[in-house]
Amino acid sequence: MSDRTAILTLSCPDRPGIVAAVSTLLFEANCNILDAQQFDDVETGRFFMRVVFARLEVSPPHDAIAASVADLAQRFGMKVSLRERATKKRVMLLVSKFDHCLSDLLYRWRIGELPMEVTAIVSNHGREHIASTDIGDLPFLHMPVTRETKMEQEAEIWRLIQETRTDLVVLARYMQILSDGFSAKLQGRCINIHHSFLPGFKGAKPYHQAHERGVKLIGATAHYVTPDLDEGPIIEQDVERISHRDRPEDLVRKGRDIERRVLARAVLHHLEDRVILNGKKTVVFPD
Amino acid sequence: MSDRTAILTLSCPDRPGIVAAVSTLLFEANCNILDAQQFDDVETGRFFMRVVFARLEVSPPHDAIAASVADLAQRFGMKVSLRERATKKRVMLLVSKFDHCLSDLLYRWRIGELPMEVTAIVSNHGREHIASTDIGDLPFLHMPVTRETKMEQEAEIWRLIQETRTDLVVLARYMQILSDGFSAKLQGRCINIHHSFLPGFKGAKPYHQAHERGVKLIGATAHYVTPDLDEGPIIEQDVERISHRDRPEDLVRKGRDIERRVLARAVLHHLEDRVILNGKKTVVFPD
Amino acid sequence: MSDRTAILTLSCPDRPGIVAAVSTLLFEANCNILDAQQFDDVETGRFFMRVVFARLEVSPPHDAIAASVADLAQRFGMKVSLRERATKKRVMLLVSKFDHCLSDLLYRWRIGELPMEVTAIVSNHGREHIASTDIGDLPFLHMPVTRETKMEQEAEIWRLIQETRTDLVVLARYMQILSDGFSAKLQGRCINIHHSFLPGFKGAKPYHQAHERGVKLIGATAHYVTPDLDEGPIIEQDVERISHRDRPEDLVRKGRDIERRVLARAVLHHLEDRVILNGKKTVVFPD
Amino acid sequence: MSDRTAILTLSCPDRPGIVAAVSTLLFEANCNILDAQQFDDVETGRFFMRVVFARLEVSPPHDAIAASVADLAQRFGMKVSLRERATKKRVMLLVSKFDHCLSDLLYRWRIGELPMEVTAIVSNHGREHIASTDIGDLPFLHMPVTRETKMEQEAEIWRLIQETRTDLVVLARYMQILSDGFSAKLQGRCINIHHSFLPGFKGAKPYHQAHERGVKLIGATAHYVTPDLDEGPIIEQDVERISHRDRPEDLVRKGRDIERRVLARAVLHHLEDRVILNGKKTVVFPD
Repeated sequence: MSDRTAILTLSCPDRPGIVAAVSTLLFEANCNILDAQQFDDVETGRFFMRVVFARLEVSPPHDAIAASVADLAQRFGMKVSLRERATKKRVMLLVSKFDHCLSDLLYRWRIGELPMEVTAIVSNHGREHIASTDIGDLPFLHMPVTRETKMEQEAEIWRLIQETRTDLVVLARYMQILSDGFSAKLQGRCINIHHSFLPGFKGAKPYHQAHERGVKLIGATAHYVTPDLDEGPIIEQDVERISHRDRPEDLVRKGRDIERRVLARAVLHHLEDRVILNGKKTVVFPD
Repeated sequence: MSDRTAILTLSCPDRPGIVAAVSTLLFEANCNILDAQQFDDVETGRFFMRVVFARLEVSPPHDAIAASVADLAQRFGMKVSLRERATKKRVMLLVSKFDHCLSDLLYRWRIGELPMEVTAIVSNHGREHIASTDIGDLPFLHMPVTRETKMEQEAEIWRLIQETRTDLVVLARYMQILSDGFSAKLQGRCINIHHSFLPGFKGAKPYHQAHERGVKLIGATAHYVTPDLDEGPIIEQDVERISHRDRPEDLVRKGRDIERRVLARAVLHHLEDRVILNGKKTVVFPD
Repeated sequence: MSDRTAILTLSCPDRPGIVAAVSTLLFEANCNILDAQQFDDVETGRFFMRVVFARLEVSPPHDAIAASVADLAQRFGMKVSLRERATKKRVMLLVSKFDHCLSDLLYRWRIGELPMEVTAIVSNHGREHIASTDIGDLPFLHMPVTRETKMEQEAEIWRLIQETRTDLVVLARYMQILSDGFSAKLQGRCINIHHSFLPGFKGAKPYHQAHERGVKLIGATAHYVTPDLDEGPIIEQDVERISHRDRPEDLVRKGRDIERRVLARAVLHHLEDRVILNGKKTVVFPD
Repeated sequence: MSDRTAILTLSCPDRPGIVAAVSTLLFEANCNILDAQQFDDVETGRFFMRVVFARLEVSPPHDAIAASVADLAQRFGMKVSLRERATKKRVMLLVSKFDHCLSDLLYRWRIGELPMEVTAIVSNHGREHIASTDIGDLPFLHMPVTRETKMEQEAEIWRLIQETRTDLVVLARYMQILSDGFSAKLQGRCINIHHSFLPGFKGAKPYHQAHERGVKLIGATAHYVTPDLDEGPIIEQDVERISHRDRPEDLVRKGRDIERRVLARAVLHHLEDRVILNGKKTVVFPD
């Protein structure tokens, strides 16, 4: 039998009755709530909710439920997203020379850990730089970039995103800064991995900065890309302990593990609709 | 203005409509849901929920809501608990010679971190063993115990629990094993801290066992007490890294920090009604 | 210029003058000590040391130093190992159906993180089970095994180990229990990854056991293989937090990350001669 | 029998023969090396070493060994420190209104975990602010401070430090910024706890900054005080996971645990002579 599960996420101004309205709608549509989490942000007065539910034999088709949800959204001023779990998100992976994150994401995808369709792998460097990664039959596109050709290159990527109906762009150690305009277009659907524990060590060469400062833990940060560099909403972070013995190259090595782990978790959270934007921050409903 | 917040927890066999029923009840009583978390255990078919809500000016009194909740509980076969947050749980602390956990719990209570009323401190050893802990005006009772007097001592503690209307008993490194009968009476309201990462190193001298085995991390476990020693439902666990340099006495020292942290977290979770028993396991709704 | 660094490890009964003797030997041979760590186990009276040193232009050749070290070893009753860093250890990887550890080790090897020569990949299952791992030109050997053919299969692996001059065998989720005789032959040079936080959940299906028991953290353990199953000297362990929401299959997924990380660290420690056996335990000099 | 153990730490320009010289000196003085760790900083060309050794019956007195060490120090241009372990460091504790760190340090001291003599507790606020901490017979001095009286107050503290022969000053959430001159006098012997994971969130109200930025982990940093605020050499750091549910007050609560732990570890490291300054960084030899 096919997966009849769907995921509904919503955010709206807080007011009494939202949970009751949502749960009653699903109850009357003969759907069974499998998981529900909510969050009231008392500072901003906004309410966030994620509901996973299953349609039963007697339930109306997905589209009918979607229509009811759209009515409800109208009534409460909600931003909603409703997706059948079986419809996987379409993901484009951008990479430069370091392929440890790309390699890790592809491996997790192959063994079924990341529910996504990979639309393309795009790099500003040639295929030979990611030679140690088995990309199989996936389309690889080499799109070199210089300061002069940046506008054209981004337009080309954007065209590809549209053609491939890509839902999410993952910058898997893609070492180019996206232009403001491109960032704006990708708002809330482009995840970057920054190799530091933001907001410490913004900018270039964070491991060298960390070594210079003599910190005792290093970290990595996965965040949505915004025009404001290294300031996008944070999805996930983690750290590992280091010591005075570690040279910058040791930090780079140790950091790779954290980067892979943090990016994979952030992408998984996004693919499962666990992340909702809340201004400059995120709500991440735990699994 | 007084705190008009209440916490409802419930568990019952899973079936459609529970969330709708609870949220509609609260909506119609003009209460505002501040936080709600739920969990379906597909293995056992049981449903668990925790709702924090606020009564507004127009809401009926707490007792009226409690009556409606009782009706609902009947209808769905729910085990419910409903508590006004302002009504703090009453807690008795049992200790033997090591007072680091006692000291930590009292400190956190004094600075307002643990919302509880301390009904008594009971020890099988004299006051001098916890001399380094400032217990202030709290009643301290020395209840020595031998194999021969164990039955009487436990009866005495039980009487004290009843007299003081104690809701929760915390074994803060109380080094006596409770009898089966006493454990049964305290089911779900007696928390113990075991100084190992259960189920590794059950029984006596866990740090010595850990040293002997050469493990690389040591831990502590807070669990509800059951007649089945070291097998009670686990509430919280944590670990710290050790090395070959650590002697058993170093493990004891490093372990103290983990014990304090783990016990304090478990007690706080219980005081905030975040923990619901699920057979031999617990559901712990995160803060 | 070639790497003129060498690593000396030793263990012997403790007595005054060992450090002085070793450091004087190297000083007189015009070698420069880059790193030195030692450990006295007061319980067993044994002394452990690891020294990294560089030969200078004026130093005698490696073999001459090795001869001096051998003399010293005789004098102090030392077990020594002396290796030029440029001479990488030769490693054979054994795998069954789950290839996440294999895949991770190969990736780290390709990007230069694990200094080793891979002699062969051996599996009791066919090549198709590790189809998602890019093994490139590495020799892959399918050596199926049944209870009846176990003796022959192990003899075949042993022959291959000798032919390929393999220094270290890594059981990268190889799901067969080695016979006592084979384990004995591989003493101190065969690393296994056990998918639990030993000594909790020994034996089969540890994630299911962990789920059953309701623990709040799961872990993995890398250890040397001994005839005593799941009791070998522990090299490295780590854990991750889980919750009541996690089903056994979620634990399996979350566990994969810990297994990869823990095994890779243990193998790296071994490759860098950081691990010295100490009876049923290990001394691991940190990097 | 008294503790005949001593701890030697040294730093000097790296050159061949240092380890041999130190270990030979101790060997010829009939001392037994119990633990030795060293570190070459290839970037700065400096060498760091910590040796723990025991004098035997036949060894010369401590002062004679100290004289030999002084000669050696001269020869190699070493900065050395040599201390009999039985001679505890003398520590002054400064505190403002939040006493969780003070309370924790005193408790650890009482149970024998921190080997120190407490010379005084000094606060810019009255005794009533730390009412929940049992300071027993320890001298408490209220030294209020305003912008106008800061110079005098610091002079008064300095006088007290000298009178009490204080070796180490611990700012246990002392919320005053030390003047440049005072910081300079206390170079390398004044430890502060900063309630953020430096270098993120420097300055005031770090928990509010962390909440504002939406980070997923918060931390604390123990560092030596320097005139350059929040830039002193870091001794120890740690973090804990938070979520979108945490309000600033929750971060403050969760942060207290990290602060206590991190400060206690840093103070212990210092008391055991494990920390050596290395320019703007530290070398911390692990226990």
